[in-house]
Amino acid sequence: MNQFASYRNGSRLFHRYQNNPILTPSQWPYAASAVFNPAATKIDGETLLLVRVEDMRGFSHLTAARSKDGKTDWRIDPAPTLKSDNDHQEERWGLEDPRIVWMEEQKQYAITYVSFSDGGPVISLTMTKDFRTFRKLGALLPPEDKDASLFPRRFGGRFALIHRPIVRGQAHIWLSFSPDLKHWGDHQVLIPTRPGWWDCHRVGLAAQPIETSEGWLIVYHGVRMTASGSIYRVGLALLDLEEPWRLLRRSDEWVFGPKEPYERVGDVDDVTFPSGAIVDTGTNELRLYYGAADTTVALAVANMDELMDYVTHCPCPGKVG
Amino acid sequence: MNQFASYRNGSRLFHRYQNNPILTPSQWPYAASAVFNPAATKIDGETLLLVRVEDMRGFSHLTAARSKDGKTDWRIDPAPTLKSDNDHQEERWGLEDPRIVWMEEQKQYAITYVSFSDGGPVISLTMTKDFRTFRKLGALLPPEDKDASLFPRRFGGRFALIHRPIVRGQAHIWLSFSPDLKHWGDHQVLIPTRPGWWDCHRVGLAAQPIETSEGWLIVYHGVRMTASGSIYRVGLALLDLEEPWRLLRRSDEWVFGPKEPYERVGDVDDVTFPSGAIVDTGTNELRLYYGAADTTVALAVANMDELMDYVTHCPCPGKVG
Repeated sequence: MNQFASYRNGSRLFHRYQNNPILTPSQWPYAASAVFNPAATKIDGETLLLVRVEDMRGFSHLTAARSKDGKTDWRIDPAPTLKSDNDHQEERWGLEDPRIVWMEEQKQYAITYVSFSDGGPVISLTMTKDFRTFRKLGALLPPEDKDASLFPRRFGGRFALIHRPIVRGQAHIWLSFSPDLKHWGDHQVLIPTRPGWWDCHRVGLAAQPIETSEGWLIVYHGVRMTASGSIYRVGLALLDLEEPWRLLRRSDEWVFGPKEPYERVGDVDDVTFPSGAIVDTGTNELRLYYGAADTTVALAVANMDELMDYVTHCPCPGKVG
Repeated sequence: MNQFASYRNGSRLFHRYQNNPILTPSQWPYAASAVFNPAATKIDGETLLLVRVEDMRGFSHLTAARSKDGKTDWRIDPAPTLKSDNDHQEERWGLEDPRIVWMEEQKQYAITYVSFSDGGPVISLTMTKDFRTFRKLGALLPPEDKDASLFPRRFGGRFALIHRPIVRGQAHIWLSFSPDLKHWGDHQVLIPTRPGWWDCHRVGLAAQPIETSEGWLIVYHGVRMTASGSIYRVGLALLDLEEPWRLLRRSDEWVFGPKEPYERVGDVDDVTFPSGAIVDTGTNELRLYYGAADTTVALAVANMDELMDYVTHCPCPGKVG
């Protein structure tokens, strides 16, 4: 069968919100150079985005924005919600690119984010119940590492972390395990880059893992470096629900990428960088929040049935086992 | 005081054994391209070297050589003692550069070595009681990592590992901790490279940590890259006995380096690479076994009192705390 013969069209899965971008520096309550790459979760029946804010010095921190419908009327914290702590050496150059999961066992939200240390970017973990007070647990792994999220529950008694170290210049998505959220082992490549493909140079987790009856839905970003810069696009994968180290499906195609002016032009051109997702059970929609050109926050929406139909018909990568 | 005024002359601490090199490919019981970078320990009253052997294909394995005095009459295993196991994916391209410590708690020897995987070099751990049967525990950390040794005992209930990852092109010596030898955390730089110095481009653990009353004696290698290749020399450091993350002393000078023809010329020129040490309590000498030019095994000997007098008068790196 011709690869283009399928009626399933990945490029039509996601629809941009009509009033994109939804958050911009100009509406920020204090001076901000860029607002982008937000984590997303639900709290008190509302949508909370924890937005990466780059200040006028060029360092980033995280600030919460809340909305009842996840689209309009955002209430932005009047000051940074989570910022560098001088007691934590690893945070010297700021905090970036958070992901949030609700840990049912701990009854807390786990925020994984990038701390920019002297030695490079590292994955740090912070726990919170309310996004007002935080308990910082420090760096989880050595630099250089980014694009991390915990899974919301244990597997075989151990926590699992998706992350994206740079190993010998290779930027694959890795999976690691821990009995205590502090010591990590069984490090393994989960989703590698694909030479020649649209995701040939770098891949990294986009939104936090999304639990579905078919498995863990993984939205990831893939990068191709061109003569004129990098293009950050979005792909899909599916992991086994109980054994998430088993990669069941992976999209051949990218399903979302830079197209609109606010994605094409900004501090970093040609970047669509999803970092948070919310499943709206009422409308059966996935709301995917993404940084656009490292400058603003934008929203794309997909129907969950169409999304799962697409991803469950993606090829098996042959890496299962 | 002038920095050269000290009567303590680091370059006179180590004396080469008169019949160096002590092990060469020509005396190997089977075809070997190079024999070098040996781990060293004592067993049954003898000295055992676990030697890296590069076969004629270019892949390495480890073979034991035993001697009563640690200098002469070496009895070499007639076949590889520890080699790649097809069940362990990470060992695809061979085993390299072991270090051995006796773990009193486990009543076993712990061998840390480099497995060369598809993804690059990783640190692997194997336990043995007799160097005849081995229990492989697999890779401890992601690639790219080398030059690792466990400490022979726990600190605050946790095992400690010295290792040398490549992080953003930087090759510092790191320290990590584990409750179970499987999951690792609290990763921290222990001994960094020093821009401009003899050890400016890479540092790495040499022999296994040596317990003394003054602290853990660390012999390390430092690399300067020149227009004609790299020079691998040797420096000294001292760690706090109970809190080995505290770097108490570090030598400004290198104390041993390539000088003799067998160190200057070989598969890799200008390399002195110690990887095993034995304290001879009878003679109060440290026997330092090293790979010479990645081709043969050689021996240098130092008086322990002179060595400790030298290192305890080295500068405090100002990193203590």
